[in-house]
Amino acid sequence: MPDLDHLNSCSRDAFTAALGDIFEHSPWVAEAAFRLRPFATVAALHDAMMGVVRRAAGTEQLAFLRRHPELGGRVGRAEILTAASKAEQGGLGLDRLSAEEFEQFVRLNAAYRERFAVPFIICVRRHTRDSILRNFERRLANDPEAEIRTALDEIGLITRLRLVAVVDGPGKPKTEGTMSTHVLDTMDGKPAAGVGIALHEVGASARALILTATTNADGRTDQPLISGGPLRIGSYELQFSVGGYFARRAAADPPFLDVVPIRFSIAEPESHYHVPLLVTPWSYSTYRGS
Amino acid sequence: MPDLDHLNSCSRDAFTAALGDIFEHSPWVAEAAFRLRPFATVAALHDAMMGVVRRAAGTEQLAFLRRHPELGGRVGRAEILTAASKAEQGGLGLDRLSAEEFEQFVRLNAAYRERFAVPFIICVRRHTRDSILRNFERRLANDPEAEIRTALDEIGLITRLRLVAVVDGPGKPKTEGTMSTHVLDTMDGKPAAGVGIALHEVGASARALILTATTNADGRTDQPLISGGPLRIGSYELQFSVGGYFARRAAADPPFLDVVPIRFSIAEPESHYHVPLLVTPWSYSTYRGS
Amino acid sequence: MPDLDHLNSCSRDAFTAALGDIFEHSPWVAEAAFRLRPFATVAALHDAMMGVVRRAAGTEQLAFLRRHPELGGRVGRAEILTAASKAEQGGLGLDRLSAEEFEQFVRLNAAYRERFAVPFIICVRRHTRDSILRNFERRLANDPEAEIRTALDEIGLITRLRLVAVVDGPGKPKTEGTMSTHVLDTMDGKPAAGVGIALHEVGASARALILTATTNADGRTDQPLISGGPLRIGSYELQFSVGGYFARRAAADPPFLDVVPIRFSIAEPESHYHVPLLVTPWSYSTYRGS
Amino acid sequence: MPDLDHLNSCSRDAFTAALGDIFEHSPWVAEAAFRLRPFATVAALHDAMMGVVRRAAGTEQLAFLRRHPELGGRVGRAEILTAASKAEQGGLGLDRLSAEEFEQFVRLNAAYRERFAVPFIICVRRHTRDSILRNFERRLANDPEAEIRTALDEIGLITRLRLVAVVDGPGKPKTEGTMSTHVLDTMDGKPAAGVGIALHEVGASARALILTATTNADGRTDQPLISGGPLRIGSYELQFSVGGYFARRAAADPPFLDVVPIRFSIAEPESHYHVPLLVTPWSYSTYRGS
Repeated sequence: MPDLDHLNSCSRDAFTAALGDIFEHSPWVAEAAFRLRPFATVAALHDAMMGVVRRAAGTEQLAFLRRHPELGGRVGRAEILTAASKAEQGGLGLDRLSAEEFEQFVRLNAAYRERFAVPFIICVRRHTRDSILRNFERRLANDPEAEIRTALDEIGLITRLRLVAVVDGPGKPKTEGTMSTHVLDTMDGKPAAGVGIALHEVGASARALILTATTNADGRTDQPLISGGPLRIGSYELQFSVGGYFARRAAADPPFLDVVPIRFSIAEPESHYHVPLLVTPWSYSTYRGS
Repeated sequence: MPDLDHLNSCSRDAFTAALGDIFEHSPWVAEAAFRLRPFATVAALHDAMMGVVRRAAGTEQLAFLRRHPELGGRVGRAEILTAASKAEQGGLGLDRLSAEEFEQFVRLNAAYRERFAVPFIICVRRHTRDSILRNFERRLANDPEAEIRTALDEIGLITRLRLVAVVDGPGKPKTEGTMSTHVLDTMDGKPAAGVGIALHEVGASARALILTATTNADGRTDQPLISGGPLRIGSYELQFSVGGYFARRAAADPPFLDVVPIRFSIAEPESHYHVPLLVTPWSYSTYRGS
Repeated sequence: MPDLDHLNSCSRDAFTAALGDIFEHSPWVAEAAFRLRPFATVAALHDAMMGVVRRAAGTEQLAFLRRHPELGGRVGRAEILTAASKAEQGGLGLDRLSAEEFEQFVRLNAAYRERFAVPFIICVRRHTRDSILRNFERRLANDPEAEIRTALDEIGLITRLRLVAVVDGPGKPKTEGTMSTHVLDTMDGKPAAGVGIALHEVGASARALILTATTNADGRTDQPLISGGPLRIGSYELQFSVGGYFARRAAADPPFLDVVPIRFSIAEPESHYHVPLLVTPWSYSTYRGS
Repeated sequence: MPDLDHLNSCSRDAFTAALGDIFEHSPWVAEAAFRLRPFATVAALHDAMMGVVRRAAGTEQLAFLRRHPELGGRVGRAEILTAASKAEQGGLGLDRLSAEEFEQFVRLNAAYRERFAVPFIICVRRHTRDSILRNFERRLANDPEAEIRTALDEIGLITRLRLVAVVDGPGKPKTEGTMSTHVLDTMDGKPAAGVGIALHEVGASARALILTATTNADGRTDQPLISGGPLRIGSYELQFSVGGYFARRAAADPPFLDVVPIRFSIAEPESHYHVPLLVTPWSYSTYRGS
C-alpha cells in the first residue's frame, strides 16, 4: 500500500496508477489532483479529489455520474462494474436479489433515471437493503439540483472508503464504526460471563443472523460485535440468552426472562454504538452507552 | 347461578343437578359431597369435593381418571367430550391442531396411556400449547404413583375453575390472574400517552397476536392486557411502538428505538404480572412490577 | 360547613358571614360577590371573588394588599394576624425563626415594602422557607406593575385554599398534591416489604425529618407520604434502608448499598409526585412516576 | 528500588538490609526467608516471609505481635512507631483523633490487650476509621486462637503493601483498587460532559470531602476517582450536579433532580468499583459496574 509521503513525491504516472480507480471510470480526477500536491493528510487528499469533481462543469459532472453502475444489477448482465463496485454491492447481497426485490430495484432505477437522467448512487457499504430502499424513495422526491448534490455527497462517502483502503498516512478520515455490548448481572453486582448473544439484522421483510458470541469474564465479547468498517444504517436485534445464565438462581419455571431481545437502529455508520444490558432474573435496562 | 347458601340448604337432587358435572362424568362426587354440608366458603366446598376423590379407592380413582377425554382429540372423533372439556380445549386451539401437532399429541397420548393406563390430564386453561407439551414430556418421566397424584392435582385446578363459574358465594378460591403494563416517558417525567402496544404469544414454533392497544393519558391501557381468568403459562412478547411517540423529539434517523420488544414468561396463572416500560429515545428499563 | 347550594340561596348576611374572612380583612369582596350569585361550582365562586378584586380600582387594590400581614413577623408583635394567616405561617415555622433568619426576613420585607409600598404576599402553604426566600429575592427584581399582578395571583392561591376549606360543593378547584413511593425488589421480582423510609426536607441551610414509614406487603406505605393539601415547593430527600432488607442475601460486608438517598424537588404543589425505587443489592433506579 | 532478580542473587546482608523492615522490628523474618531463595515472583517472596512467621513457635509469634504499635497512639507519646506504621496511621488521621475518639481507641486497645495480651493489629491502609472501629468491636468477641490467626492475616496484608512498595519484579500481588464513575445522559443518548462530581467519605459520625471533579467529553473523570493503592473499606457518597447540566432542557423550576447523591460502601479494597450514573432530568439509575 503506497503511503502519503510516496504519493506526495512520486511521478504523475505512479500517482495516477495508484489513485486512478478511486473515482469510477474517471482517472481524470486523480490527474487533476496530482497538480494540487502536496497533501498534509489523507483527508486533505480526499478533499482535494472531491474538490476537482465539485468544481467540474455541470455536463462533466453528469457524464461522471453516468459512468456509475446501476444498483442491484445482476452479475452477468451487460453492465460493467468496477471491481470495487462489485465488491461493495456484493457485500449487501445486491447481486443475489430475489425476483421481487430485483423488480423493485428495476422500477426504482427506472423512475430515478427518468427523473434525474443519472443512475442512483449511494454508498452501499453504509446501508442495509432496507435503508437503501428508504433512501431511494425519499431521494426520488428531491429537486434535480439538490439530488445531484446528494449524489456527489454519496460519491464522497464511497471514494473516502476506497481511498483509506489503498493509501496509508496521517489524518485518515474516520470511516469505521463499532458495535459492542456488555452484560452486567445487577443481581450479583458483577459482569455476566457465559451469556450467549446473537445479533440479527431485522429488515422490513426479512431477518438475518449476523453473528453469535458468548460473553467473557468481563461480560463483554472478545471482539466488538461489528468493527473494521462503517456500520450499516438499519435495524438490528441483539438477543441475550439470560435464562441459562440465571438458571441456578431464578425461582420461576419457566423463568420470567429467557431470551432478552433488544432492537435498535443505527443511523451513524462511523460512530460507536455500545448497547449494554443490565439484567437480573426479573428486570433489565439498556441504553446507548459510550 | 346458585349461591352457596342455596346449595347448603337445597335438596339432594337440586345439589347434584347443580354440581354433578363439575367432575367429569362423575356425579358421585357431588353426591358424596352433599353429605358434608354445610360449607362456609366456595373454597371449602371445592376442598370437600376433592377430598371425596382423594379418599376414593385406587381402582375408583383410576376409573374416574379414565373417564377424562384425551387431549387434542379432534372434534368429530368417536370421543365424547363434556361441554366443559370441549370449551376448555377449544380455547387453546387444541381442536384445530395441524397434522404434525396432532401426530405429536397422538404419540404423547399413546406413550402416556401405555405407561400410566389413564389419559393425560392437565388444566388446559392455565397453559399454552408449548407448556402443555413441555409438561407432557416431563410427566412421562414420573413414577406412576407420583403421576396419579399430579393428575389429581390437575383435576383440582380444572374443577376449581368449573366450580367458581357456577357457584356464587363467599371465599371463592383465587383463579384469576392479570397482565398489565404502564409506559413512563422518563425523558419528560410523565406517562407516555398514545403508545401503540401489541401483545403476542411466542411459542416454540409459532407466534400469535393476542391483542393490540394504545396507552391512555396515564400511560396505561384502559383494560388490563389479560384478565378474567387464569393466565396461560407460556412466553409472551409485548411490543411498544415508541418510535412514533418520540418522533418529534428524537434526533436520529432512523430513531435508535422504534419498536421495543419485551419478552417474558408467565409461570403463575393466578398472579398479577405488571410489566412496565420506562423509556427515553435512547434507553429503556422493564421489570416485573406489582 | 356550608355547601354551595346554601350559599347560592341564603341571605346576604349569612353569605357574608360565611365568606367575609376569605379575603384578608376585606369583607367587601364577599359582599360584591353576593350580587353575582348563583355559582355552578366552587371554582366559579372563587373566580367571581377574585374578579371583584381584579376589577377594583388601583388604589383599592393597594389598600387591600396593605391589609395583609408581613411575612415572618413574630407572634406577640404589634401586627394583627387573622387566624388563617397565623395558621398558614405557623405551619412553615415562620413564627419560630432564628435571629438570623428573622433578620433576613426583616431586610427583605423592608426592601420589598420600600420598592412596592405593600407587604410581600405569597401563598405560604405551597412553599418551604427556601422557596419563599428564593421567590422573595426574585420578585424584588420585578417592575411594580408585574409585581402587583403576581401578588394578586398569590392572593388567588391563598384564598382558593381558604375557600375549599369552608365551602362544600361540586367543582372544587384542585388544591391538593400527593407524594408517594413504592419499593420494588428487582432481584426477586416482588414488592420489597418492611423497608424503612425516612423523608426529609433538605433546605439550603438545614434539613428536617418530615416522617418515617415502613413499606407494607405491596412495597408501598399505608398512607401517601404527603397528602391532604398542597405540597410545598422545595427539596426533599427520601432515604430507603435497603441494607437491612437485603441482609440475608447480600454477600458484601459492608453491603454495597445500605441507605439509599433520593433527593428531588417539588415544583408543582397540586401534582402527584410518585418517586419509586427499583433496587437490588447492587443497583437501583428511580424516576418521577405516575 | 531493588528488583527481584537482585534479591535472588545478592548477599545476605544486602537482602536483609532491603527487607529487614518489612516485618515490624523483626529482621529475623527476612533472614529466614533468605535461605528460601530464589523466588519466582514477588508474591512468592511474600508468601515465603509469611510462612516464616506462621511456622514460628507460638511464643515467638506473640513476641512478634507485641512489637507492633498500638493503634491511634498520639504522636509524641512514648511509643516508638516505625516510619511505615507512622505513615500508615497518619493517612487515616489516626494521629489527629479528637479527645473522644482517642478515648474510644484507648478503651478498645485496653480491652483488646487485656483479652489477647497483644496490641490490636489491622492493615490501616485498607480501612476508614469507621471500619476499624467496627472490626475492633467484632474481633474483641473472637476466641484467642482465631484472633491470633486474624492478626497474622492482617500482618500479611500490611507487609504485602510494604513489600510491593520496595521490591520491583514479576508477579506482584494485587494491592490496588480503583474507584471510577461515568455519567451517561440517557435523554440524549450520549456521555454527559461537564457534570460536577464530589466524592465524600460518609462515616458514622462525620463526613469528609475527598475530591471534586468534572466529567470530560466521554462522561468520565480524567483520572480514576481513587487509585494507586488499596481502597478503604467504608461508606462513600458521590454527588453529581446534574441540575446545571440539564438546565437548558428541564422544564421544572426548581428542577426535579439537582444534586444526585449515590451512597455506597466498599468492602474489597483491591477491587474495581465502577459506579456509573445513567440520568435524565426525571430519572436515574446506578449500579456496580465493571
